[in-house]
Amino acid sequence: MPGAEGATDLPDLADIRAAHTRIAGLVHRTPVMTCASIDAEVGAALHFKCEHLQTIGAFKARGACNAVYCLPDDVATRGVVTHSSGNHGAAIAYAASRRGIPAWVVMPENAPQVKQDNVRRFGARVRICAPTVAAREAACADVERETGASLVHPFDDSRVIAGQGTVALELLAAAPDLDVVVAPCGGGGLLSGTAIAVRSVSPKTQVIGAEPANADDAARSFASGRLEALATTTTIADGLRTSLAPRTLAAIKAHVGALHTCSEQGIVRAMRMIFERMKQVVEPSAAVALAILLEHRTAVRGLRVGVILSGGNVDLDRLPWVPR
Amino acid sequence: MPGAEGATDLPDLADIRAAHTRIAGLVHRTPVMTCASIDAEVGAALHFKCEHLQTIGAFKARGACNAVYCLPDDVATRGVVTHSSGNHGAAIAYAASRRGIPAWVVMPENAPQVKQDNVRRFGARVRICAPTVAAREAACADVERETGASLVHPFDDSRVIAGQGTVALELLAAAPDLDVVVAPCGGGGLLSGTAIAVRSVSPKTQVIGAEPANADDAARSFASGRLEALATTTTIADGLRTSLAPRTLAAIKAHVGALHTCSEQGIVRAMRMIFERMKQVVEPSAAVALAILLEHRTAVRGLRVGVILSGGNVDLDRLPWVPR
Repeated sequence: MPGAEGATDLPDLADIRAAHTRIAGLVHRTPVMTCASIDAEVGAALHFKCEHLQTIGAFKARGACNAVYCLPDDVATRGVVTHSSGNHGAAIAYAASRRGIPAWVVMPENAPQVKQDNVRRFGARVRICAPTVAAREAACADVERETGASLVHPFDDSRVIAGQGTVALELLAAAPDLDVVVAPCGGGGLLSGTAIAVRSVSPKTQVIGAEPANADDAARSFASGRLEALATTTTIADGLRTSLAPRTLAAIKAHVGALHTCSEQGIVRAMRMIFERMKQVVEPSAAVALAILLEHRTAVRGLRVGVILSGGNVDLDRLPWVPR
Repeated sequence: MPGAEGATDLPDLADIRAAHTRIAGLVHRTPVMTCASIDAEVGAALHFKCEHLQTIGAFKARGACNAVYCLPDDVATRGVVTHSSGNHGAAIAYAASRRGIPAWVVMPENAPQVKQDNVRRFGARVRICAPTVAAREAACADVERETGASLVHPFDDSRVIAGQGTVALELLAAAPDLDVVVAPCGGGGLLSGTAIAVRSVSPKTQVIGAEPANADDAARSFASGRLEALATTTTIADGLRTSLAPRTLAAIKAHVGALHTCSEQGIVRAMRMIFERMKQVVEPSAAVALAILLEHRTAVRGLRVGVILSGGNVDLDRLPWVPR
């Protein structure tokens, strides 16, 4: 069952290919960019997959559309529900509006107004809850019970993981013969989908997960082999403040070659480098993949590397290099 | 003569096509982007030509490369000289480094360190002068006399205008059947080249110049038919703080349909809109074209409009919407 508690079923390449066909008219096929001056900094040939140019400004549109369009008509008509203070909430709102079904998004009371507006823009209803995991899950369960809506978890859902895996299919098609693909890791949905797709299509290509040292639960879980808790985190990479689920840990253990972490200063530096040299607006979470390359240059020296720029939804009034 | 005082010879379509061939291996063929949510704001179908993704971060690389590569070998070997505190200086430095000839760039003593570094990065020599037109011209003349270097003026040069006109050739190829093309106007090099190219290739397409109201010499010159002076200007669009030359005024009078101006707040608003919705880093001068569309919506309602995003070299520590 895609959303069942503790389930660990995962999509395979056929599921990811089916997802790609399913969402083709709903999301953009984003470009792959290169930048000679960043290549010179890293000492490798980087190919940036531009998911900050995706609908709703992040790859999350892919998983959300796949999950929403997998639902049978009679189930879909009752709507979908999720909890997210970030891009997944907007993605579910977008996917539901495209399918013409209702959506509810549970958000903590401290979520910025701009993120609530992003969700409401697509006609979704926002349910405010206390900023705790328990309150969030209870609010989701309430909506499910009241409305019959289907839960679409931000990452612990094989339909969502299959959708996120479509990023890698397009990256490998545009930039063949990559030695390495780097994806940021929060809950692990993007990294799991990427790893399954890459290792199936191009077994010689290594997949590396990128994580802030300030939210390194995935790196610790990868090392120990079991789910390690994430203490309160202060990373500026707000999209990566979640921990893995058993499902995503299973995919990562099976298909990912390494998880590297980076400093907060490294994230700011990489983000600014992408703004300055590529002229692209990315959010801190998206810069984490480049940050680990800058801090682990020897691991990729001379290689052809795919880098997933996961999203571009950043508060332009609070860019992290501007003193306040 | 390309650089002669008061000369008004202009390139034709054949010159612009020849420039396009000449610079093909030296500059990028930049992409054309669209953005549904900005289209909805303006009420038109916009096609953004992304010269902020050009080598050195601005269209100026085109004109500079064309002028530098037009020089006969025995002349080129003595080098090139120009005056510019902005993108043209970096463009000449880049073009000269590609051709392997020396370059001198005269800059006012108040030019920011980052702009001097941009020029030195390509091996050009920087000559500092007092921040006046007379001092700048004297310093250029000194370099010409001492070294035999050839002057490449930032816009009052038909080879430079031909190079800038190649932007429009690519835009029309990627987005045929445009009703209007909008280009920002400072000294008028880009607008002249654009107008000549567009009116030759697609006579039914109107060309509109975009200018800050705070530096509206071109709009006033266009209205009166003769060169009007530019008083000291305070526009944040630092690339557009120059006035027309007789040569560029002649091209604009012959081929441009209208010049529109916009407010300073309009520039900031358009620039932020491009950051937020297109996830593209552009400089204030590049946002002026969208700003005039937002302030003159009725002029383009329902039309297919090409918009030249001229450059992306902006000081990220001083974005204009962030209070200091």
